[in-house]
Order: sequence, then C-alpha cells, then structure tokens
Amino acid sequence: MRNVRLTIEYEGTNYAGWQWQKNAISVQETLTHAVRTVIREEVEIHGAGRTDAGVHALGQVANFKTYSAIPAKQLLRAINFHLPQDITIKDVADMEEGFHARYSATSKVYRYTVLNDWLRTSLNRNFCYVYGFPLDLSKMMTAAQYLIGTHDFTSFTTKALDNKDRIRTIKNLEIQKEGKYIYFVVEANGFLYKMVRTIVGTLLEIGRGKMDVYLIRKLLETGNRDDAGPTAPAKGLCMKEVKY
Amino acid sequence: MRNVRLTIEYEGTNYAGWQWQKNAISVQETLTHAVRTVIREEVEIHGAGRTDAGVHALGQVANFKTYSAIPAKQLLRAINFHLPQDITIKDVADMEEGFHARYSATSKVYRYTVLNDWLRTSLNRNFCYVYGFPLDLSKMMTAAQYLIGTHDFTSFTTKALDNKDRIRTIKNLEIQKEGKYIYFVVEANGFLYKMVRTIVGTLLEIGRGKMDVYLIRKLLETGNRDDAGPTAPAKGLCMKEVKY
Repeated sequence: MRNVRLTIEYEGTNYAGWQWQKNAISVQETLTHAVRTVIREEVEIHGAGRTDAGVHALGQVANFKTYSAIPAKQLLRAINFHLPQDITIKDVADMEEGFHARYSATSKVYRYTVLNDWLRTSLNRNFCYVYGFPLDLSKMMTAAQYLIGTHDFTSFTTKALDNKDRIRTIKNLEIQKEGKYIYFVVEANGFLYKMVRTIVGTLLEIGRGKMDVYLIRKLLETGNRDDAGPTAPAKGLCMKEVKY
Repeated sequence: MRNVRLTIEYEGTNYAGWQWQKNAISVQETLTHAVRTVIREEVEIHGAGRTDAGVHALGQVANFKTYSAIPAKQLLRAINFHLPQDITIKDVADMEEGFHARYSATSKVYRYTVLNDWLRTSLNRNFCYVYGFPLDLSKMMTAAQYLIGTHDFTSFTTKALDNKDRIRTIKNLEIQKEGKYIYFVVEANGFLYKMVRTIVGTLLEIGRGKMDVYLIRKLLETGNRDDAGPTAPAKGLCMKEVKY
C-alpha cells in the first residue's frame, strides 16, 4: 500500500483550523474531500500539527495510505484542482510505509509576524499582528534565550486539569527585524496548545517594558499561566516547516 | 476652506475599482461615506487615479475641501475607524488651496507583481499573477528600454474610437527579480486605461520568446493594439505612489 506525503500551504483566515470538526469547515476536511474525489477511496489524512482557526501554513505536512496508482505529479495537480484557492498542495511524495506526518516529525518551525506600527495595514491584514508600542528588541532577544532548551512550558499554554507532560525542547528561537516587521521564528520538538502565541505575547510585554526580562525564568519554574503575557492573535502565526 | 489630502492603502479584491459606480461598491464610495460620517459634510473626494476592479493601492492619493476643524491626526483615526479593514488611510495632510490629487500630480508609480512559478500560491493569491513559462529577463529588460520616454501608447490601451491624446511619458520602467517574484515598476506622467497591464502582458510574451524584442518599437509606431500581448490580470497591479 502506498504512503503519500503532502506538503500544504494555506491561508487559515476562512477555516476553523486544521482539525476536522462538526459545524465548522476545517482545512483537514476540505483537503480530505479533495483527495477522496481524486483517488475515489475513503482515506484518512493525518496532519503533522493542528493549527488553530486563523493560523496559516507554508509547509504543513500530512500523509495518507492509498491503493491508487496515480503518479505523484498528477496527484498534485488533480488535488489542487479540487481545492479552493486558499489551500495549495506544494509537494506530493511517496514515502516508506512507516512514515507518519505527526509521529515521524523531529521538529516543527513556526513563524510569528508582528507589524510594529501605530497604523493598521490593509494589504497584509490577515498575516500579522499590529502592535503599536515601541519595542526594545535586545530585551526580547535576551528573554528569548532563556526559553531555548528543554523546559516545562506549562506557563505558556492554556490551563488544563490533566497531568499530561508539558516538557518540550525549543531548539531555536530567533527574532528578526525587517523594517517595521518583526518575525519570531521558533523551532521545537513539539508545541503545546497556543504555546507560540503565548511566548510571543509574553516577549512583546517584555519588549514594551511592562514585564521584566527575568520573568521568563520564573515562568519556566512556577508554571503559572497567569503570570505570562496575553496570547497573541492567531492571524500572525504561520506553520513554516516540519522537519523529519 | 481647508483642502485635505489623504494617502490611502487598499486591497482592491472586493471592490469594483476606485471609481464610484451604480450597482457595485467602489473604494471611492466607501471612503466618501466614511469621510462624510466623520465630518458631517457632503464632500466630494477626488482621487489621483482610477484603479480597476481588483487593483490594489499602497499610496493612492485623494483630496477634499471642508469647513471641518478636526485636526489631521484625529481625522486619520476617525476615518479609519469608519472604514472596513481592507481600506486604510495612511496619512492626512492640510494642503494649499490649489492642490488637486489628480491635476497636481506630476507622475504616478505602479508596481506589477508576477510569480514566475508553475504552482499557484495561497497566501499571496490576490496580489500576484502566476506565470508558469520560463522567462528571459534580459530580453524583457531590453524591450522595456524602448518604452521609456514620450510615445503614443495607443497599442497599449483598450481600443477606442475617440481622438483623445494617447501620448504619455514613461520616466522609468524597472524589472526586478526576487526569488520567484518579478516586479515591474513603472513611473509615468500619466497612464492610459489598462496601460500597465498591457505593457506587462506584452513583456511577458517577449520574455517567454513568443514575441520579438523589437516588436515594442513597431507597436509604438503603428498603434495597433492587436499586435500587443494580452492584458495581464488586475490582481498583480498596485498603485504604489503618486508624485507631486
């Protein structure tokens, strides 16, 4: 049986996120319908990560098993034909049988875009968070250094009552400035729910001078979500890449 | 009486163009309603240029006369508050009485964006023309040189039966490549209807090798629209700047 890997770009604006749900249109459902139309099998599609409503992807990865003999290149064109314009298959590849988009991933890279301006943008309005306060980038970069490594990120996710493991390893966290735009690029072996957005929300509070740089260390120790910054809006977030 | 200049950014995707029309929503109408709501006067707003349906602007300019005493900064915030997110006032300035957004302009700069790839884009789909054929940029640049200067651009506009002057001066025409994106930046003292899009459509045919570089000279001499290339799609076009 073939194991097909898809690399997917999408604008999340008009979707209730990646994950299939009742009463709302998801990327996973839209994609599954398109694939099923092309290969005429009731396949299940597994994504590398669940992006929230409004979150975008440049390189989401998914896989499915099929008996179809349609070559990869042809599959790409046929699936794109059946997809709306805000979802695009960028690559189709045949993988070994054991490949799983989620479980085989070694790390994921997310990018968060902030427009540091007092004025909104019309052309880029669905792809960035407009933040009006002046930011001290060196403070944010110092704070970011504390996050790199293996930590309990309980402070940087939504509150939950379960006992699940919230230890993750951030391999890299870069803050880049290009004109009025600030990009946060975070690579980790896994992400908790809303983790990138809470990290960005906290780093912005630090850059603005409302929170202390060393708060990051305290947050990693105490695991108290209430002490972290607000969750930055979904529209600034983009799943950039999944590594295997 | 005050003469107020507005600098405007908009995504043209959901508008029937700049110009007010019956039975379709235009940028001019939407903007006029917002301004009238703020200053409570039945002002008329004059734009520097009419952009077509689907064409965007980073720096459209408009002006209106008013008795309102609301300071410029406050006007900007109030008008933006009443505008949808796809239209943004970027600047408000008080001008001398004789200033007119259209008649005072000395030149306008348009940018046309081509994504030279065989694959569509989801994130940037409303802002570029995806062109799949390989392009010879040096041929296109040579051809572009012939267009610079004062010429009769009858071949580069829609056919019309009137005797209006179709002589314009292109001050600059640059072709820039950044990765898979190609930008055409054209500055002229004025533009005919669909002129930039016909120039781009023709240069693409030349870059692809379907038309000869020297065709440009013939087109400028004969004024035959049928010999030029197709009109490139509106979504790739953006009014970048108006100069005074």
